[in-house]
Amino acid sequence: MSSPLPASLRSVAVLGLGLLGGSLCHALRATANPPTLTGYAHRASTLARAREIGLADVLTDDLPAAVGGADLVVLCSPVGTFEALLRGVAPYLKSGAIVTDVGSTKRSVCRLARELLPSHARFVGSHPMAGGERAGADHARADLFRGATVIVTPEEHTDPAAAPTVADFWTALGSRVLTLSPETHDRLVASVSHLPHCTAAMLVSLQTPTSVDLAGNGYRDSTRIAAGDPDLWRDILIDNRDHIAAALRALRDQTDHLIAALEKGDADAVRAYLAAAAARGRPPIR
Amino acid sequence: MSSPLPASLRSVAVLGLGLLGGSLCHALRATANPPTLTGYAHRASTLARAREIGLADVLTDDLPAAVGGADLVVLCSPVGTFEALLRGVAPYLKSGAIVTDVGSTKRSVCRLARELLPSHARFVGSHPMAGGERAGADHARADLFRGATVIVTPEEHTDPAAAPTVADFWTALGSRVLTLSPETHDRLVASVSHLPHCTAAMLVSLQTPTSVDLAGNGYRDSTRIAAGDPDLWRDILIDNRDHIAAALRALRDQTDHLIAALEKGDADAVRAYLAAAAARGRPPIR
Repeated sequence: MSSPLPASLRSVAVLGLGLLGGSLCHALRATANPPTLTGYAHRASTLARAREIGLADVLTDDLPAAVGGADLVVLCSPVGTFEALLRGVAPYLKSGAIVTDVGSTKRSVCRLARELLPSHARFVGSHPMAGGERAGADHARADLFRGATVIVTPEEHTDPAAAPTVADFWTALGSRVLTLSPETHDRLVASVSHLPHCTAAMLVSLQTPTSVDLAGNGYRDSTRIAAGDPDLWRDILIDNRDHIAAALRALRDQTDHLIAALEKGDADAVRAYLAAAAARGRPPIR
Repeated sequence: MSSPLPASLRSVAVLGLGLLGGSLCHALRATANPPTLTGYAHRASTLARAREIGLADVLTDDLPAAVGGADLVVLCSPVGTFEALLRGVAPYLKSGAIVTDVGSTKRSVCRLARELLPSHARFVGSHPMAGGERAGADHARADLFRGATVIVTPEEHTDPAAAPTVADFWTALGSRVLTLSPETHDRLVASVSHLPHCTAAMLVSLQTPTSVDLAGNGYRDSTRIAAGDPDLWRDILIDNRDHIAAALRALRDQTDHLIAALEKGDADAVRAYLAAAAARGRPPIR
């Protein structure tokens, strides 16, 4: 581990025990100073599976009990459940408790936390750029966050001690932490994460069984993320719809540009377009 | 190896010694009955490197000498060079020689072969759905074609014995051979191969350094192929531009559909779109 967990986080409640929540439990247990770990799940089948795996010290479907003693509460359920979950935990958070999340959008959860949490609780949004198209605790792994970028989104009113603690929390799990405003986060991830999800779904939608039968590795890689959970991604796309619609309009402009170059048979323009993209290089594997 | 090379192919000339040509040389040498292998390259540096690697029995920049004794000639240079190459080899092909290629488009090379090759030579187009963004013989490998789909595109006038020989040639290298007309091939690969290349380039073009800094594995996989050689891909896109422009227009329609659903906040429509894509599943790894 890069560093120990912040000493103030002796009790952590993980709400939602899917791929991210399950991996978080595994990762916390693998730290040099594992906290007391409580896992909460709403669905009986999820909880039963978590018990079989032995994900946490306490596993419960009792939300007040799960968060009552927690120094840190991490929302690991889909973005669409955050409002109900924040309403549910608000009366039971202890004074000074830090609340964060792993959702793919940040404006809405920050607004909800502002509206719904008591002033003695401290919310800081988080977004680990980690996951996979295979959902559920069965695919959880202790190293999911290792090397991943985690964006932390404090705001003006955020408690000044809470943001560094949340950053240190992720650093202890081996993540690279960046800090952005919720607004900037949502705009940038619309482009670099949500738009690729849309293009993957669109590429798949445009195929026929015959065309897919010819697919090579390029198609496979380009469309891998289209297999993601539709409920989870519906919530993300709807929640961040203004920025995603803008990103899709920008994609349409690029499409029009390429169509025009192809219809003119303008080989130089086509080459220039491809060369600029190829020259950008690939983001490093972290 | 799945099966030996066809017995009639005792001498094979590979024209172009990049990733595909180099891999073809390696793969042919790994068969149970390797043919006499001649490699041709135009550029001195390519030829020098091929000699260092020891890619073929004979390595030359003398095109007539390279193809004069060949039972099979395989064009492994970029699509844009095929016209000059076919003109160059036409006078020197022996009677009954089979000519094929590894280009990503098939209508144009089939038309050029019809126009430029002598009637005593037999052309059958091939397209192995294999490659990689790392070009050049240094990245060549004997198993590049193993498990890959190779589309063979005979036409009405094609010699009836030539197409099965070319199919058996690829089968001997471990490929899965499908047969399509050049027209159908070009339409389908526009959708399943050339369009993903365009979307990868477009996704990269839409990023800023800040957004790319947040990239996760989804973005990496979605844009991997954008690193492909711009000259090679310019040729492919220009050559197949009618079908690719049609595929891009279909993509634009999908984009408009998604934008409309997002602007209405229509969560059900967004979910239905994503669920249909996720339900398609992924093509098998071969």
